[in-house]
Amino acid sequence: MTDWLTVPCRIPDRAAVAAATARQGTLTKPPGSLGALEALAVRLAGLQRNERPRADRVWIAVFAGDHGVAAEGVSAFPQAVTGEMLRNFAGGGAAIAVLARELGATLEVVNLGTVNDPGEIDGVTRQVIAPSTANLRIEPAMTDAQLDAALDAGLASVRHAVAAGAEIYIGGDMGIGNTTVASALACALLDERPERLAGAGTGLDADGIARKVAVITQALQGHALATSPRERLRRLGGFEIAALSGAYVAAAQHGVPVLVDGFISSVAALAATALHPGVRPWLIFGHRSHEQGHARVLAALDAEPLLDLGLRLGEASGAALAVPLLRLACALHGSMATFAEAGVSEG
Amino acid sequence: MTDWLTVPCRIPDRAAVAAATARQGTLTKPPGSLGALEALAVRLAGLQRNERPRADRVWIAVFAGDHGVAAEGVSAFPQAVTGEMLRNFAGGGAAIAVLARELGATLEVVNLGTVNDPGEIDGVTRQVIAPSTANLRIEPAMTDAQLDAALDAGLASVRHAVAAGAEIYIGGDMGIGNTTVASALACALLDERPERLAGAGTGLDADGIARKVAVITQALQGHALATSPRERLRRLGGFEIAALSGAYVAAAQHGVPVLVDGFISSVAALAATALHPGVRPWLIFGHRSHEQGHARVLAALDAEPLLDLGLRLGEASGAALAVPLLRLACALHGSMATFAEAGVSEG
Repeated sequence: MTDWLTVPCRIPDRAAVAAATARQGTLTKPPGSLGALEALAVRLAGLQRNERPRADRVWIAVFAGDHGVAAEGVSAFPQAVTGEMLRNFAGGGAAIAVLARELGATLEVVNLGTVNDPGEIDGVTRQVIAPSTANLRIEPAMTDAQLDAALDAGLASVRHAVAAGAEIYIGGDMGIGNTTVASALACALLDERPERLAGAGTGLDADGIARKVAVITQALQGHALATSPRERLRRLGGFEIAALSGAYVAAAQHGVPVLVDGFISSVAALAATALHPGVRPWLIFGHRSHEQGHARVLAALDAEPLLDLGLRLGEASGAALAVPLLRLACALHGSMATFAEAGVSEG
Repeated sequence: MTDWLTVPCRIPDRAAVAAATARQGTLTKPPGSLGALEALAVRLAGLQRNERPRADRVWIAVFAGDHGVAAEGVSAFPQAVTGEMLRNFAGGGAAIAVLARELGATLEVVNLGTVNDPGEIDGVTRQVIAPSTANLRIEPAMTDAQLDAALDAGLASVRHAVAAGAEIYIGGDMGIGNTTVASALACALLDERPERLAGAGTGLDADGIARKVAVITQALQGHALATSPRERLRRLGGFEIAALSGAYVAAAQHGVPVLVDGFISSVAALAATALHPGVRPWLIFGHRSHEQGHARVLAALDAEPLLDLGLRLGEASGAALAVPLLRLACALHGSMATFAEAGVSEG
C-alpha cells in the first residue's frame, strides 16, 4: 500500500504572498498591467515561501506506459509507438526532448511498461510494471499492486526532482490509447457522459471517436460500482496517468510547484485532487489543449491555463512551452525598478 | 515627404513555405498536434525565405512621445511619466528592459519628444520632434513635417535592426495619453464609435472613460473631413504611433518579420496596412491586450495573437513575452527528429 499518499500537503506561505503582493504594487507600471503574470509571480512566491520566486531549475518527467484498451482500435497510431518513442525521448528527437534542451531543463524519461519493449536505453529509467495495463472495457486496468507501483514511480520522480533542487516540476505522458483512458477516468470522476469528453486524440475520424465513446461507455458500466478515487484510478487509469497522479500528490507534499500539461495530465491532476484535496494549490496549468475533453476537466479544477495554442501532443510539451512565462514573470517581479528607485511619478 | 513609404513590401517565399510544410509532416508527432506553433514556424519560413527559420536575434525598439491631448485629463498618470520612463528604460528597471535582458534581445529606446525632457541619456536615441503633439481634440496632432519625422524614425530603427541582423523586429510605445490617441485613430480608420474602443488605459474609472469618449468624439467631428490614411494618422496619431507605423512598413519592405505588441501597436499596424496593404503578411501578433478596443482592432486585422494574459502595459512587453514561443516553435521545427530518423511508426 502507498501509505505516503495520506501525508499532508504543504500549505502556501501567506507571508510570502503578502510581501510579493506589496512588492507588485511598487513596480514601475500601472497596477495590474502585467495581468496574469502578476498573479503568477505572487502565487509562486507563496508556494516557494520566497518573496522573489524563481523558475530556473525545471524538472520534466515523462512517464510512458501501454494500455490494454489499445486493442479496441481507439488510436490513430499503432501501439508499437509507445516503446519506439522512448528511444526518441532519450535520443533528443522528440518534441519534449527539444524543448527540455532549449529550456535547460532536466528531462527524466520513465518506462513503466510497453508492449514493444525497447529494453535498456541510456537516459531512460526502467521501472516496468507490466507490458501493458489490462483492457478496461472488460476488466480493471490495473491490479492493486500495479497501481501502487505506478503511484510510487511518481513519488520517486519527485524525490529525484527535489534532490536536484527543482523549482518547478512538470510531468508528461506517452501511451498509445491514453486519451481513451483519461476520458473514461474523467467521466467517472466527474459523472460526465463519454460523448462530452472523448475527442480525436492523435487524429481519429468521426467513426473512430464513436468507437471510442462506445468503449468508454462499456467501461463505465463495467466499473460503475467503483466509487473511491483510488479504485476508479485503478480500474479506469493507466500506468503513466497513475504515476502523474502520484507525482502531483508528492510534489504538493514536498512543496514543489507543478506545471500541469494537457488533457492526460489534467485528468491525472483531477485524480490527484480527488485522492488528496491539498494538492490543488500546487497546480499551475500550462495550456488549454485542443483535445475536446480538456475544457471540461479544467473547469472542474477551476483552472485557467497560461497558453491556448491548439496543442494536443502531450509528452509535457504544453507545460514546457509555458516555462518561459514563469521565468519572465519571476524576472519582472524580482528585477523591475520600483517607482521610488526609478524616480517615476505614481498615478 | 516620405517617398520611401511607397516602396513595395517583400513577398513571403512560397518555396520555403512549401518546404517547411512538408518538413512538419515528417516530424515525430501526430500531424497538427503542435497547433499554432506549426503554422508559426511555416509562416516564419516563408518570411525569412528559409525552410528552418530562427528567432534568436530580436530587435526591440521603444518609441516615446508626449500627446497634447493629455491636457484633457485622459490618463490616470501625470504627463511627466513619459519623460521619466525614458531613464527607466535605459536604466534597466522598466518591464521591457527586464524582458529584453532576459531574452538577450537588443533594446533601442527612441525619444521623439517629451514635455518633461530628460535631455541626453546614455542608451536613449534622441530624435526629438517637439515636446509634444498638439491636442487632437481641437487641432491636428501633427504637422506634415512632424508626421514625416515620426515615420522616418520608424524607418531609421528598422535600418538599425537590419544592420544588426535582426530576425524579428518588435516595436513598443510609451506616451501618457496614447490609448486616447490610438482609440481616436482606430475609430477613424474603422468607422467605429468611441464607446466601443475607448477603455481604461492605465487605470481610468468610469468617469474618466466617459471623459475620454467625449474627447474622442469631438476629435472625430473636428477631423471628419480627413479620409486618407496619412491624413488620419497626422491629425489623430502621435509621434510614437506614427513611428511604429513607419517601422512596420519599413520592416515589410526590408523583409523582417514583425512581432506586434498590444493595443497601441496594433492601431499603428492598422494605420500601416492602410498606408501600405503589403505590410500585413509581415505582422505576427504577440498578445491580446486587456484594453477594451484591442479585440476590435485585431478582428479588423484578421489577427489571432499568440498570448492572452490580460496584459495592458505597452512598451512592447506583450510582444517580448511571446518571443520564447517563436524561438521554441523554430527549435521544434528545426530540431525534432523525423519518423524515419527516429524509427517511429507512422499513424
